Amino acid sequence: MLTPQIIDAAVAAALREDAPWGDATSEAVIPAGATATARLVARESGVFSGGEVFAAAMRLTDPAIETALTLDDGEFFSIGKVLAEVSGPARSVLTAERVALNFTQRMSGIATLTARYVGAVNGTRARIVDTRKTTPGLRPFERHAVVSGGGHNHRYSLSDAVLVKDNHLAVLTAGGLSVTEALREVRARIGHTVHLEVEVDRLDQIEHVLAAGVDTIMLDNFTVDELREGVALVHDRANVEASGGVTLDTVRAIAETGVDLISVGALTHSARALDLGLDVVLRG
Amino acid sequence: MLTPQIIDAAVAAALREDAPWGDATSEAVIPAGATATARLVARESGVFSGGEVFAAAMRLTDPAIETALTLDDGEFFSIGKVLAEVSGPARSVLTAERVALNFTQRMSGIATLTARYVGAVNGTRARIVDTRKTTPGLRPFERHAVVSGGGHNHRYSLSDAVLVKDNHLAVLTAGGLSVTEALREVRARIGHTVHLEVEVDRLDQIEHVLAAGVDTIMLDNFTVDELREGVALVHDRANVEASGGVTLDTVRAIAETGVDLISVGALTHSARALDLGLDVVLRG
Amino acid sequence: MLTPQIIDAAVAAALREDAPWGDATSEAVIPAGATATARLVARESGVFSGGEVFAAAMRLTDPAIETALTLDDGEFFSIGKVLAEVSGPARSVLTAERVALNFTQRMSGIATLTARYVGAVNGTRARIVDTRKTTPGLRPFERHAVVSGGGHNHRYSLSDAVLVKDNHLAVLTAGGLSVTEALREVRARIGHTVHLEVEVDRLDQIEHVLAAGVDTIMLDNFTVDELREGVALVHDRANVEASGGVTLDTVRAIAETGVDLISVGALTHSARALDLGLDVVLRG
Amino acid sequence: MLTPQIIDAAVAAALREDAPWGDATSEAVIPAGATATARLVARESGVFSGGEVFAAAMRLTDPAIETALTLDDGEFFSIGKVLAEVSGPARSVLTAERVALNFTQRMSGIATLTARYVGAVNGTRARIVDTRKTTPGLRPFERHAVVSGGGHNHRYSLSDAVLVKDNHLAVLTAGGLSVTEALREVRARIGHTVHLEVEVDRLDQIEHVLAAGVDTIMLDNFTVDELREGVALVHDRANVEASGGVTLDTVRAIAETGVDLISVGALTHSARALDLGLDVVLRG
Amino acid sequence: MLTPQIIDAAVAAALREDAPWGDATSEAVIPAGATATARLVARESGVFSGGEVFAAAMRLTDPAIETALTLDDGEFFSIGKVLAEVSGPARSVLTAERVALNFTQRMSGIATLTARYVGAVNGTRARIVDTRKTTPGLRPFERHAVVSGGGHNHRYSLSDAVLVKDNHLAVLTAGGLSVTEALREVRARIGHTVHLEVEVDRLDQIEHVLAAGVDTIMLDNFTVDELREGVALVHDRANVEASGGVTLDTVRAIAETGVDLISVGALTHSARALDLGLDVVLRG
Amino acid sequence: MLTPQIIDAAVAAALREDAPWGDATSEAVIPAGATATARLVARESGVFSGGEVFAAAMRLTDPAIETALTLDDGEFFSIGKVLAEVSGPARSVLTAERVALNFTQRMSGIATLTARYVGAVNGTRARIVDTRKTTPGLRPFERHAVVSGGGHNHRYSLSDAVLVKDNHLAVLTAGGLSVTEALREVRARIGHTVHLEVEVDRLDQIEHVLAAGVDTIMLDNFTVDELREGVALVHDRANVEASGGVTLDTVRAIAETGVDLISVGALTHSARALDLGLDVVLRG
Repeated sequence: MLTPQIIDAAVAAALREDAPWGDATSEAVIPAGATATARLVARESGVFSGGEVFAAAMRLTDPAIETALTLDDGEFFSIGKVLAEVSGPARSVLTAERVALNFTQRMSGIATLTARYVGAVNGTRARIVDTRKTTPGLRPFERHAVVSGGGHNHRYSLSDAVLVKDNHLAVLTAGGLSVTEALREVRARIGHTVHLEVEVDRLDQIEHVLAAGVDTIMLDNFTVDELREGVALVHDRANVEASGGVTLDTVRAIAETGVDLISVGALTHSARALDLGLDVVLRG
Repeated sequence: MLTPQIIDAAVAAALREDAPWGDATSEAVIPAGATATARLVARESGVFSGGEVFAAAMRLTDPAIETALTLDDGEFFSIGKVLAEVSGPARSVLTAERVALNFTQRMSGIATLTARYVGAVNGTRARIVDTRKTTPGLRPFERHAVVSGGGHNHRYSLSDAVLVKDNHLAVLTAGGLSVTEALREVRARIGHTVHLEVEVDRLDQIEHVLAAGVDTIMLDNFTVDELREGVALVHDRANVEASGGVTLDTVRAIAETGVDLISVGALTHSARALDLGLDVVLRG
Repeated sequence: MLTPQIIDAAVAAALREDAPWGDATSEAVIPAGATATARLVARESGVFSGGEVFAAAMRLTDPAIETALTLDDGEFFSIGKVLAEVSGPARSVLTAERVALNFTQRMSGIATLTARYVGAVNGTRARIVDTRKTTPGLRPFERHAVVSGGGHNHRYSLSDAVLVKDNHLAVLTAGGLSVTEALREVRARIGHTVHLEVEVDRLDQIEHVLAAGVDTIMLDNFTVDELREGVALVHDRANVEASGGVTLDTVRAIAETGVDLISVGALTHSARALDLGLDVVLRG
Repeated sequence: MLTPQIIDAAVAAALREDAPWGDATSEAVIPAGATATARLVARESGVFSGGEVFAAAMRLTDPAIETALTLDDGEFFSIGKVLAEVSGPARSVLTAERVALNFTQRMSGIATLTARYVGAVNGTRARIVDTRKTTPGLRPFERHAVVSGGGHNHRYSLSDAVLVKDNHLAVLTAGGLSVTEALREVRARIGHTVHLEVEVDRLDQIEHVLAAGVDTIMLDNFTVDELREGVALVHDRANVEASGGVTLDTVRAIAETGVDLISVGALTHSARALDLGLDVVLRG
Repeated sequence: MLTPQIIDAAVAAALREDAPWGDATSEAVIPAGATATARLVARESGVFSGGEVFAAAMRLTDPAIETALTLDDGEFFSIGKVLAEVSGPARSVLTAERVALNFTQRMSGIATLTARYVGAVNGTRARIVDTRKTTPGLRPFERHAVVSGGGHNHRYSLSDAVLVKDNHLAVLTAGGLSVTEALREVRARIGHTVHLEVEVDRLDQIEHVLAAGVDTIMLDNFTVDELREGVALVHDRANVEASGGVTLDTVRAIAETGVDLISVGALTHSARALDLGLDVVLRG
Repeated sequence: MLTPQIIDAAVAAALREDAPWGDATSEAVIPAGATATARLVARESGVFSGGEVFAAAMRLTDPAIETALTLDDGEFFSIGKVLAEVSGPARSVLTAERVALNFTQRMSGIATLTARYVGAVNGTRARIVDTRKTTPGLRPFERHAVVSGGGHNHRYSLSDAVLVKDNHLAVLTAGGLSVTEALREVRARIGHTVHLEVEVDRLDQIEHVLAAGVDTIMLDNFTVDELREGVALVHDRANVEASGGVTLDTVRAIAETGVDLISVGALTHSARALDLGLDVVLRG
């Protein structure tokens, strides 16, 4: 999902943002011929994500920088671990540093938070999935980080799946159609590869929705007891997604209701950056 | 700083990211002629930021959407407050919703966190300032949000100010120059409008740095006692910036040492999104 | 699917391609103040598609051009029918003419060809669907034209659905896994909204594929008798798609086998442009 | 004309269109280390065009893919001929396949159709030339394909030549100028490198147009007899272009009238894709 | 030639260059509600060019700015003349000022210099034409300015005309072809709308070149006497262009030799900016 | 400041501008296998600037071209000096020639003019600095050329420094604030790294401005005597910049008044291109 083309476009834009007309400090302070080695070091433990992005920030700043990644995305690391080693022209390494860190810290932060959720539901059938509550411009990076942390992805965008919510249903049935009829019409309109998910607020809606043959049913803001009852009602006729206000404290109980999917907006909208640093050694 | 051009470019890119070939749900579910009104509602209290960005997400999705902002950026709001009102074609309002929220929730999250830091140093001379630890691609938005929260901005990028760190100094003085001589050479090389800031780790470096005539001196990872001593040594010959591991718990004590600037990376790299929602009412 | 943003970007690029530094003829020949009216006229009968694109070519050349569309996309028209009326500055109308026609003729050509296929399967359960054999850069336009002609869309791209072909299966089962096991692993790896389609070449593969719980099974280059047998075997446990060498001569028999989907590459890769012309009247 | 820059820009855009966030199938199905070889094979005979474009689709997807072209653009091939050989990472080869084929099939389709027209006029002085009725965004590719088929190019765009049509002439002479005077004024206004072509509908217009010193005269929708008479009237004082409704059935007779140029819109607006396929062999 | 699309793209880029993250002065100094009027005033006399570009710089900075142009491009003005009047939000007018002036001063400088050359050849048949020695990125603006000054344009680019120079001829004839034969082959290869110009260094080359039927012959670095002799030899069989080291001192004598075209690189590569200023009146 | 990214983006755009659909001459005249060597030769003496840009024009046209630079930017050269040597495919060298020269001639022209100003103030404390009167789109190139000539850069853009002019001051003090108070408010509003410069027209303004603690004071259109008096008044409390109508005739006297900075708009807005040529040798 995180293709070289996607990485390079976003990293190049970030480098232009951070040095629109060059790095004044490096140019004024560092001799043109100086070289540097640097280590990406974990200042706290976590799950790694963004290795290729880190390397791209170095390479796009200066093809003369060599980057060796020590971990694959998705691997756990302890405090003090060296995650990557870099060597090349000193000016360039210093110019690339902040952008490389900004990506990797954010992605590893998301991966680490995701891994905590995934760990919390261990042994259940529930997948931890992301949402569209991503940082504008960084969706493929954040979705990749969720996968690094052991999570799964929900739909990518508004274009590739249909998600019918309650106020949609109200409009659909305003003319007298039943919920089932209305959803069958939706299914008839959309492409056969377009996933059809429907959100319900109450247990009594479930049967009407299932009768239309949907792919996933989202139980929104259900209590744990309601979720358990919902799962029983669906009885494997569709995927069941729990959604709404999920936290690390509540996710285990939700998973144990037997739902297939638990979507967590906080994975991407509220993960904090992981503390990674670049230890640079300059040589004249 | 947050010009219409900057807003429109980033919002248009985010809209393309979230609906690369249209909104499958709106097209399949909502009648073409349906209209909607919607309210941006605070689900928790905070400081508003991103009003113009919210409006741009609506307008760039469909010029027929009208958006009325109820607050200016920088204003405090309580839970339940209506921050903006929207009306227009239902399909378009629903298509724009997530992108509009993704920007505004993030920006208001940063503004709200900044305001807490600013409040904590109230009555001191210290400015709370941001860093370059921003989300790739969103720097002007996040700097704007810091200002909404009552903070100030540090340099924008590597291009517009020089910040000399300890390993820079090591390189500069490797050939036998003193720190003062080396910094004077840096000053002579850079443009007269380029701000010169130097980072020091120890109190005994301060006098050598000041002798070169720098604009700002950064005291990195100093204790509160060292900071107080540093401020006395500088004695208003340069701005004094405290940096390193600042938290809401420590920021007041740091400010009371008399420093001019306290830089806080967490403002942008670890603010969580504020909980804002869009309450939509569809009309057939 | 064909959003204003998509239309405007492609049309603006086409206008730049066709007049990179202006329209030498209009500038040299037509007085600056001259006006024109023009009619988009059908020189043969067909199904209309691309009305909004036609209007955008006029508007993006010159906002002073007014365009009134007489038909909606998807409507049938006879030879001689006026499909749109245009009025505005003569120079601009002439500059926009060719790009406007190039889009609309191509799209209406695809819609018209699609309508012939759709008509041929009338009364069966089969959908006529497109493929990824589209013109580079014009996929959303060509998919829209297929819908104008009464067809449906297959997956948009490689990103939004999985289609496992025979040589994929060979790789998947190289290590000793059965086809069913291998496909279950694929299903476990992909997002729950990602459609899973599998192509088979022989009837005996069907049961193994279905056992893994796929969404669609593609019967590739099956005879009509084999298709009928395949439909019976699947027995509504997945969508059945017929694919390979479908023509107007064979499509009816294929549809009558009971397949759900018939994919036709020729809809987009080999439709000819429909003969539409712009009758322009200049006024000094 | 088809420069590396033009090829790379259009191919990169097509690859983004076909895999906006990666190739879900390759990622889920093909092991990261698997390799593939593939052959581009002719499923029908024709004239090759687009070899460099095919190679670029492979290279831009993954620089690790090697492509060896077996034919040059413009060469004829028989059914079963191997046109190119590819080897590299299996995931990447499969990701690139469809875009590579979409370009090459279309370009070879145009080259093959052009070659039939060129063959039909063999031995006459007539050039087969293209028009501006090209696919939006692909003009340089389609013009290149016309040359591959032995045809020649007409003007590239509205910017680089003037083509005065009958309704232009009406405007030009509305104020009382004769056709000859009006065209002389046009000539005086335009740059000396700008080709001046004038379209006429009737034989009696020819002398007036020639008197102004035009470069090419287009005889639009003339019968074969009228064309022969027109060629005699022009008597080598300008290029003579025949235009309008030319088909493979009529082109020979038109060419034998002695015209210099025969423009054929169908070369680009209605050529069907040639049937080329990629035979892929995957290796674990 | 200077289309709205070309103007807007270049002006928007220039505005981004001059205010990448806003106008720090206007934001800090000017109240948000302040308005301004401003006059574009000639501080020296000259020929106006770039009026629409000036207006676009204002409009693209802020649609609320109104600009009224007092002169058309190509008109002469005296010192002190008001060339345009502007009114709108004060911050925006000040933000747009420099970019608006940078374009208009440069374009008017070129127009004014061109007008001096054109005036110098008044009454002869010679056109003053530009070259490809333009500022990278600004070719259409500079060509437009040449036309504003009464000059004409040479070919736009390498793509739209062929210019064969002496070292080309050496290569063409290396295999034993005569110059005439070689040029006939070139003519046969290129499109019929592509202008064919050939550069010669000596009088004895002229007949060989003309025998091939070229459109323009360039007499490069000829003396005035040689030019006169060259014109006689050509005898209206092609356009004659004088080229090389033309100055205001020599251009009249060159024109009087009877050449059709005099190309002057200095028009675009060495024109100085005309002194135009913006007199701004701010209102609280 | 002139990063590889900036160079490549502008050079690629210039190459597209100069050969939007290829080089018609090279394609028609030069055999595909021909090679060329070429020398960049000084036809007049000067200061070199743009070596890397020249090399990029060659490389981006064709990676097979090798370029060896003989001089570094900033070095003086005499007439006849070979500045660079090029070898590679003949078609590509000829295609790249004009763009390579257009950049290098312009940049070396600016460097050479700057060096004359810098030489004229030799031995004084004055820096020669540029302005924002640069060519739209080429600012980093022109600023780099100024540095090549021994000059220094003023602020890059409106975003990175504040420059308060007289009409700004009028607005600021309209409400009754003194100049000093008003400027203190500006200082309080802007970031601590933002340079604050204030323009004054009269000597009596200086003390009020200095009292607010500005970084640079600009003495605009002062006589030499006034400048000398101004320098004395400022007494090293801020940088002193002389501005307005500076010429090579007046710059020495201005420098001898003791000012720190002399800004010269003519460096960039009115430098003529230096006469550099490419001597090409083609080989069949």
